[in-house]
Amino acid sequence: MATKEEAEAVLANKQVILKDHIHGPPKESDLEVRISSVLPKAPPGSKAVLVKNIYLSVDPYQAILMQKIEDHPDISCFVPGKPLKGYGVAEVIDSDHPDYKPGDLVWGITGWEEYSLITEGFSDTRPLQRLLHIVDTDVPLSYYTGLLGIPGLTAYAGLFEVCSPKEGERVYVSAAAGAVGQLVGQFAKLSGCYVVGSAGSNEKVEMLKDKLGFDDAINYKEEKDLTAALKRCFPQGIDIYFDNVGGKTLEAALNNMKMKGRVVLCGMISTYHDQTIGVNNLVMAIFNRVRIEGFAVLDFCEQHPKYLDFVLPLVRGGKVRYIEDMVEGLENAPAALVGLFSGRNLGKQVLKIA
Amino acid sequence: MATKEEAEAVLANKQVILKDHIHGPPKESDLEVRISSVLPKAPPGSKAVLVKNIYLSVDPYQAILMQKIEDHPDISCFVPGKPLKGYGVAEVIDSDHPDYKPGDLVWGITGWEEYSLITEGFSDTRPLQRLLHIVDTDVPLSYYTGLLGIPGLTAYAGLFEVCSPKEGERVYVSAAAGAVGQLVGQFAKLSGCYVVGSAGSNEKVEMLKDKLGFDDAINYKEEKDLTAALKRCFPQGIDIYFDNVGGKTLEAALNNMKMKGRVVLCGMISTYHDQTIGVNNLVMAIFNRVRIEGFAVLDFCEQHPKYLDFVLPLVRGGKVRYIEDMVEGLENAPAALVGLFSGRNLGKQVLKIA
Repeated sequence: MATKEEAEAVLANKQVILKDHIHGPPKESDLEVRISSVLPKAPPGSKAVLVKNIYLSVDPYQAILMQKIEDHPDISCFVPGKPLKGYGVAEVIDSDHPDYKPGDLVWGITGWEEYSLITEGFSDTRPLQRLLHIVDTDVPLSYYTGLLGIPGLTAYAGLFEVCSPKEGERVYVSAAAGAVGQLVGQFAKLSGCYVVGSAGSNEKVEMLKDKLGFDDAINYKEEKDLTAALKRCFPQGIDIYFDNVGGKTLEAALNNMKMKGRVVLCGMISTYHDQTIGVNNLVMAIFNRVRIEGFAVLDFCEQHPKYLDFVLPLVRGGKVRYIEDMVEGLENAPAALVGLFSGRNLGKQVLKIA
Repeated sequence: MATKEEAEAVLANKQVILKDHIHGPPKESDLEVRISSVLPKAPPGSKAVLVKNIYLSVDPYQAILMQKIEDHPDISCFVPGKPLKGYGVAEVIDSDHPDYKPGDLVWGITGWEEYSLITEGFSDTRPLQRLLHIVDTDVPLSYYTGLLGIPGLTAYAGLFEVCSPKEGERVYVSAAAGAVGQLVGQFAKLSGCYVVGSAGSNEKVEMLKDKLGFDDAINYKEEKDLTAALKRCFPQGIDIYFDNVGGKTLEAALNNMKMKGRVVLCGMISTYHDQTIGVNNLVMAIFNRVRIEGFAVLDFCEQHPKYLDFVLPLVRGGKVRYIEDMVEGLENAPAALVGLFSGRNLGKQVLKIA
């Protein structure tokens, strides 16, 4: 039993808890927002760090981890009864770890809760599995959940490392108004490419063309025939397709790839919860000698410092913009996550902890 | 009108004619075997070559070309009312072309008929679009339709150029008893790989293991769960999948690829005539960072001489074997072509013109 002093010192901790493993698309009711409590101290000898979370990244992959996936070394699913996990920006409140002290701003994997006791990952050899200090604070801190974090590195490595865009090449990006897509398009434009994005509303289409400098954009929900729409946008074919969607969108892209085109499979939001959505025209990859490559940003973590060197000057110079959809309050986190699958967000979905 | 002398000199020419463009799988009734006639001379000034066909290659792609495919620079479909075309071995009967003389043995694109007047391709820059002289005659001439021809080069370039097999890697080949697959497996074995093939009968499975040196082989028709069967054969996962089948076979392979595995898409016989057969688990390519690459042998034609230098010593030394399924007589050509799609052939399907 806690002493009276300890009990008084306990902090109320709002958390977003996974009720049970899901089958199919996530629903708000799969998550429960509840108040727990946490000691205001990193236990002595624990080497742990207690942080107060400021911004959380809301990402489609988190709905995958709400399922139970076995037998995969890379994937550790969420645990029922525990808060979701994900990347976030936080301030150190207390620390038993020599590398962190109260007041430090950090980003890395944290919990969907007000306070998280970070106990692991400090000796992980993969840089982005560790809690990282935020050095550059002249940009919005929330950018470390997006532009300066995993989505940014995803766009950078997926485009430059896997697809090697060359000046004049024609690039198609799906989910182009999302966390990754908006950067893929801007980076491709900076490489001298012609860039077309697809998104699910006219508002997003306008954003791509007016705010983010895409050459063209289409609202896939208003296109009866996506293959024909892409043929209209790419009469000479697509050199590079950056796939965030999979399924029928990938199929339409494959129908329009140029000879020796490249496809990077980065995400498949259309198929995560429906195993019957497939691609029926892979034979087009033979006809056009297309290379299709599965990509995970985890393999490119060591490039993050190089990426920051690349992108920070562009951000400061106004050459790269980043649109965020900011939702406030952990009680709105379930709706924000579920909303990703209906495309409710306009730009990178971020949760600000009030 | 022909003079009496010319009329007498005319040769009866049995031909396999495409009746009309097909939709769906080929049927024997889509083809008609009929007797036409041909002048026994290459017309003066024509630069044409008249050949007597000896062996014809019977290939799945020929059923694709019986369809009408538009808007693709690489694909010229068969013309209704005309004989099918394909690779074959022939003897020159008459020539108006300075590079060919009567008695020359040649291989290249010819017609499904007894005599073909070859009028084009002589100045094609792609070596395998030209009629080539057969230099090495100490091996069966029919091998130029398979082992020493397009299927052989397909196996060689698809495996070595696209997949770069390394010693100890684990290789899966589908349609392993076919024209290409049997060589992929043997070449991979020569590279020190562990090789498993799949085929559609126990006879084929025995052939792979007993005659062709595969480490293991499975009869996919007797496996209820192909994913599980491949997991049994590759407990540590597949490094290289050489895909001749597509569809559900590709899906099962994707479920078993090792991290950073490579898939070469060479053929998709399971999907050519059924556009509803697709691949629903491309997300596995993201999980395992798999590279999937469409391949066409046409891009590697210039490697044919190098390939012959590689393979001829192996054939002569008994290190590579080649199983042919030899059918005799043009009247049996329709059944031989249709039979490819039910897997009737045991080994490379060759038609010998009686």
